[in-house]
Amino acid sequence: MKKKLLYGQVGGSLNAFIGGVHRVGIAFDGRAQLAAGCFSRDPAANRETGEFYGLDPERIYGSYTEMAEAEGKREDGIDFAVVTTPNNAHYAICRAFLENGIHVLCEKPLCFEVSEAEELKRLAEERGLLFCVNYSYSGNVLAKEARHLIRSGVIGDIINVNAEYLQEYLVDDVGAGDEAMVKLSSWRKDPAVAGISNCVGDIGSHIENTVAYMTGLKLKRVAALTDTFGQPLDLNANILVEFENGAHGVYSCSQVCVGHMNGLTVRIFGTLGAIEWVQENPNVLYVTLKGQPTQIYNRGMGYISPEAAAFSRLPSGHPEGLYVAFANIYKAFISSVLKTANGEPLTEEDRDYPGLDAGIAGVKFIHACVESGKRDAAWVEV
Amino acid sequence: MKKKLLYGQVGGSLNAFIGGVHRVGIAFDGRAQLAAGCFSRDPAANRETGEFYGLDPERIYGSYTEMAEAEGKREDGIDFAVVTTPNNAHYAICRAFLENGIHVLCEKPLCFEVSEAEELKRLAEERGLLFCVNYSYSGNVLAKEARHLIRSGVIGDIINVNAEYLQEYLVDDVGAGDEAMVKLSSWRKDPAVAGISNCVGDIGSHIENTVAYMTGLKLKRVAALTDTFGQPLDLNANILVEFENGAHGVYSCSQVCVGHMNGLTVRIFGTLGAIEWVQENPNVLYVTLKGQPTQIYNRGMGYISPEAAAFSRLPSGHPEGLYVAFANIYKAFISSVLKTANGEPLTEEDRDYPGLDAGIAGVKFIHACVESGKRDAAWVEV
Amino acid sequence: MKKKLLYGQVGGSLNAFIGGVHRVGIAFDGRAQLAAGCFSRDPAANRETGEFYGLDPERIYGSYTEMAEAEGKREDGIDFAVVTTPNNAHYAICRAFLENGIHVLCEKPLCFEVSEAEELKRLAEERGLLFCVNYSYSGNVLAKEARHLIRSGVIGDIINVNAEYLQEYLVDDVGAGDEAMVKLSSWRKDPAVAGISNCVGDIGSHIENTVAYMTGLKLKRVAALTDTFGQPLDLNANILVEFENGAHGVYSCSQVCVGHMNGLTVRIFGTLGAIEWVQENPNVLYVTLKGQPTQIYNRGMGYISPEAAAFSRLPSGHPEGLYVAFANIYKAFISSVLKTANGEPLTEEDRDYPGLDAGIAGVKFIHACVESGKRDAAWVEV
Amino acid sequence: MKKKLLYGQVGGSLNAFIGGVHRVGIAFDGRAQLAAGCFSRDPAANRETGEFYGLDPERIYGSYTEMAEAEGKREDGIDFAVVTTPNNAHYAICRAFLENGIHVLCEKPLCFEVSEAEELKRLAEERGLLFCVNYSYSGNVLAKEARHLIRSGVIGDIINVNAEYLQEYLVDDVGAGDEAMVKLSSWRKDPAVAGISNCVGDIGSHIENTVAYMTGLKLKRVAALTDTFGQPLDLNANILVEFENGAHGVYSCSQVCVGHMNGLTVRIFGTLGAIEWVQENPNVLYVTLKGQPTQIYNRGMGYISPEAAAFSRLPSGHPEGLYVAFANIYKAFISSVLKTANGEPLTEEDRDYPGLDAGIAGVKFIHACVESGKRDAAWVEV
Repeated sequence: MKKKLLYGQVGGSLNAFIGGVHRVGIAFDGRAQLAAGCFSRDPAANRETGEFYGLDPERIYGSYTEMAEAEGKREDGIDFAVVTTPNNAHYAICRAFLENGIHVLCEKPLCFEVSEAEELKRLAEERGLLFCVNYSYSGNVLAKEARHLIRSGVIGDIINVNAEYLQEYLVDDVGAGDEAMVKLSSWRKDPAVAGISNCVGDIGSHIENTVAYMTGLKLKRVAALTDTFGQPLDLNANILVEFENGAHGVYSCSQVCVGHMNGLTVRIFGTLGAIEWVQENPNVLYVTLKGQPTQIYNRGMGYISPEAAAFSRLPSGHPEGLYVAFANIYKAFISSVLKTANGEPLTEEDRDYPGLDAGIAGVKFIHACVESGKRDAAWVEV
Repeated sequence: MKKKLLYGQVGGSLNAFIGGVHRVGIAFDGRAQLAAGCFSRDPAANRETGEFYGLDPERIYGSYTEMAEAEGKREDGIDFAVVTTPNNAHYAICRAFLENGIHVLCEKPLCFEVSEAEELKRLAEERGLLFCVNYSYSGNVLAKEARHLIRSGVIGDIINVNAEYLQEYLVDDVGAGDEAMVKLSSWRKDPAVAGISNCVGDIGSHIENTVAYMTGLKLKRVAALTDTFGQPLDLNANILVEFENGAHGVYSCSQVCVGHMNGLTVRIFGTLGAIEWVQENPNVLYVTLKGQPTQIYNRGMGYISPEAAAFSRLPSGHPEGLYVAFANIYKAFISSVLKTANGEPLTEEDRDYPGLDAGIAGVKFIHACVESGKRDAAWVEV
Repeated sequence: MKKKLLYGQVGGSLNAFIGGVHRVGIAFDGRAQLAAGCFSRDPAANRETGEFYGLDPERIYGSYTEMAEAEGKREDGIDFAVVTTPNNAHYAICRAFLENGIHVLCEKPLCFEVSEAEELKRLAEERGLLFCVNYSYSGNVLAKEARHLIRSGVIGDIINVNAEYLQEYLVDDVGAGDEAMVKLSSWRKDPAVAGISNCVGDIGSHIENTVAYMTGLKLKRVAALTDTFGQPLDLNANILVEFENGAHGVYSCSQVCVGHMNGLTVRIFGTLGAIEWVQENPNVLYVTLKGQPTQIYNRGMGYISPEAAAFSRLPSGHPEGLYVAFANIYKAFISSVLKTANGEPLTEEDRDYPGLDAGIAGVKFIHACVESGKRDAAWVEV
Repeated sequence: MKKKLLYGQVGGSLNAFIGGVHRVGIAFDGRAQLAAGCFSRDPAANRETGEFYGLDPERIYGSYTEMAEAEGKREDGIDFAVVTTPNNAHYAICRAFLENGIHVLCEKPLCFEVSEAEELKRLAEERGLLFCVNYSYSGNVLAKEARHLIRSGVIGDIINVNAEYLQEYLVDDVGAGDEAMVKLSSWRKDPAVAGISNCVGDIGSHIENTVAYMTGLKLKRVAALTDTFGQPLDLNANILVEFENGAHGVYSCSQVCVGHMNGLTVRIFGTLGAIEWVQENPNVLYVTLKGQPTQIYNRGMGYISPEAAAFSRLPSGHPEGLYVAFANIYKAFISSVLKTANGEPLTEEDRDYPGLDAGIAGVKFIHACVESGKRDAAWVEV
């Protein structure tokens, strides 16, 4: 009976940012141990990172293919791989681990093409492997409470959605011409690495996922008004959306909105009530029933549903943040991997992490927005 | 040399709502006195209102035509008329007073047809008469400060606009079928009285005006996704906008968004900074310069520009609200009428009220949105 | 049967601030007309003000004694007097009008000495006259709703009170020595005019009144730690309080707290719930029941009690501010004066204005705080 | 040259709360590994916890004395001990580890008696050992920024302090008599375990520390009005404070204030500006300069000082919470232990954790408040 897991990581050397957040997220529950890695294409950074974490030198690999094969064959091979490289490498790496029988957690967006995303799904199903796409905001307790309340019918039928994700960090690119690519070093701005979209791909996709996670609604079509301001990829997008249930709404994402750091705000309006959640202040949730005062739900209080409270780690008023969201994605995913290894059945709580369907939906959304953007905001089916 | 004015009112009997707000707004500065009226089609209500305000019985008129003619001929006739009837009567009433040489202040939206609006403008210019369309929110001191800061270049070139006006008060109409018209008694829902739009006409038009007032930008085209939820007129609209300078944005207006009372929020994003103003909390203004902390401007403080501060009536921290916004519209309009009467030149401050160009822009915006809404959110020129 | 009243004003020339707010507040309901005044000791300012309001020249008086006597004798004399002079003149002026049989509304604090306050009460009762002390914040609809909820038992027994009134406008006086009196021209800083206290007298007294209004609790004793920072009167005070029911709390008032404009915040904690109201954003009220989410009450919504809603003038989300608070004080006071004149009985709603008991409590509170401040924050009975 | 440390823990079995937060906090930087423990007096819980973390069975100790001695003697003994037991055990445990030459990090409040606290200091200095008292809130980046700004003179001389720490979780104890001790199982309410104070000891001490950390001011005396509501220890306290520089202020702490979860709010007022920080929303800091708009500082932005930014882990807008505050306390403490072990000099940044002086100040503050509370809020020297 397995009690702990081993994992390996691709990307995420000591200097990188998001890879470290993954390692801390995993450490919260102490149920998985880093055992292998291919942390960087730079051999020195790769070795240094592996050594810092006390890895067996032979499990610090020079390439992800080597790693996937070797770990797939070891008796004590890693149980799952964590993929934290730039977007363009996701598909091939995930594929390699799946082909070697290893569960995968990959950063979002999942990959460039819808066909690739579907191929990963086919492969995972064929091999009976688990796959998580790290839409981390769904790890927040009150995002889960929003989902619980909406699915319980508290706000009635959804009739309008207003969601946004605004940042200011690329405002200097506006009108900066070719120099912007040089001046500001972000691979997100480079089509070769980031794919067909910068803004919609990086943050618009979080809007899509968070709304889908909370509401269960499927997007039918989008009309996206995008702005590149002279850069290769989009920096700003205002997107009309239509869901399969007929509800409408608007998604706004931007990297050029001064005054907004990482402003993901989701507002879901129903016939009986409404819900608002603001990622930057994730420990409260605004819930209003028709004709009644807005209520400020506080994570950690007794009125939070058991489904959401199962992921709450600190008493009310003790702020949880992004690291806890990551820890909660891993809490469900690691539970699922552990129970699968032990032949135990999975609960709803175990399955509460974003999987390949979420990943595929994200890639489709990005493609539809980019195509609509090119066609002067014409409607494009998702 | 005139020091005080006389005014008459059409609509606004004692039981009506907005007409009373106008009378209080005028009373703030004590420079105009109610002297005539045709307050209601109900003779009793009309008489009762006139008597309450101590009017000369012969100046309590049975019809606006009678009133316009009689007052136009009197030596001591009213200087301006205040039109606070439902929308469908605006055009004819305004026309009557203009034709009788009387300045006019009319509630918004100005009228049904663009041609009517332009005819009013032609008439006013021909007669040398002043005309105010009561987009009252521009009367707020900090809306004026936003305008001042933007026009001073503080936030650079405008690159994105995100504005909304959300209310919940008609959410019961969703799916209510024919009963909704009966159940909830608002003329705003009746095409015969409200015109071609309910939501865009009533509140979307305030977004259009407030953004135009603050930025000076002209709208080029709109793509409006509207929802009627089975009612004759729109209750919800998400609108992509493009300005003549090439900037994009989104306007959302709704009467079915639970949790929102009268939520007009305007956010203007520029290359150097951004501004946010929230009508429900009008005594603060959020100003952010690129890379800097957001600053909370407080009405009444020394750093407010003289242009805006000229309209501030209370010390900082003593909240001003809607009545003051009305008072400030009248402050400028009455100054203009007084000075015009006295042959004095008008200052920028005197002219700081919404005129016929604003009224025409509003009617055009409503038409463009309604047409786009009918054509599945296709782009329509404004 | 009287339908309208006449009033006169002492103080409040056109250049003065608060006097004008009174006139606008009265104008909201159109039930009282300015008919007499002694607006300034400066004859020109006095005359100019009276003329602006179209007063009969013989009713523009050179002194308040003359005015009180003359108006008391006239057939068409004023029904009530509005006293808006600096503090030191309140007592004598109020006395003069009472002695001449005229109802009075006086700015707070009522007067310097407790004995004076009690004498005014004796006089008013003897003559059967009404008297309002303008603690204007109790005119806010949601201050009334707080009072209603507390008195209905919604928050249980009160166990702690935390209230503050913070301003920054005198921070330059700290350590400024004798120059401060000269440099900053406010009579509030001058003991000869303001009395024994600046900060506690001007704004601390508002805390005392607002808490008393909402809770009905009587103060038993105070321990006040006051700071003058080298000036003649207090600029800052932190005050422990004990109520007659045994509950404790703290009141903080200051004119030297940077970042606070006019920050009156009252928080009342009970065994079952709590209430928070913030004067600078008066259209919302925070209500929390034990173990439940905080609810944001919105003025104008259907769940507001009839007692409070009776004073609400605008739909929800249309901000009401200080002028409306004044209008509401006058709404009750004028109703009371009108009904008294007509021999009609007064309702609870009519009586909902601060009277002489509130005025006396305020003077006692100021005296107790000043004495405690001198005795190193020793307890002093109120 | 040491690169990583070993640590042991006393208290903090798998079921306990705060002990787990410590382990996660340490895991953030991966520089210390759990190697020994005495996690519970319950042998099964003790063993289970040690096994979960894969400890060598002989390093799962039955008593802290055994642990301190054995670890002190081992070649590979722990570098530091983490003490996360209830208050009454702190002193003896800390003493045992110091006597065996092991650095200590202990939860707050440090111990019961001032003499004990001073003895720990004497012992640590004698042995050259490092000691951290876990006032975790000082680990927040913006608490550090507040300290930086204040010490840089940005807000001038401090003239008033207003700080509070409000919770609602014990409100049911009010008037509950003897049953409260039974009904609600918290050792904090039991004098035998918690010491002389519940509320001031648990949360008032955080106010004292946070203000001292930010301002560097020393408390001179306190006048504490405390409430037990029939329970053995205090549940509510309003405390006047005087600092050695002459500034005054008020601290309010409570466990019976409905609507407040964990509301530590600190406001420091100076002659030139003011600072406000709210623990429940720790990623923003409100900074106001005299006469200027309030600025909302955002953790992670370029304008944050290097001193504070050194502890920032996530980009702006990605919320950091309590776990990060713990991680930052450990970041400094572990750096100090590592460098001390390697004979390297410590930087200001390394020393940025609360030490024994902070611990002693906390014990003194609690004693002074309790004594003042017993003497009807008389002044007591700290």
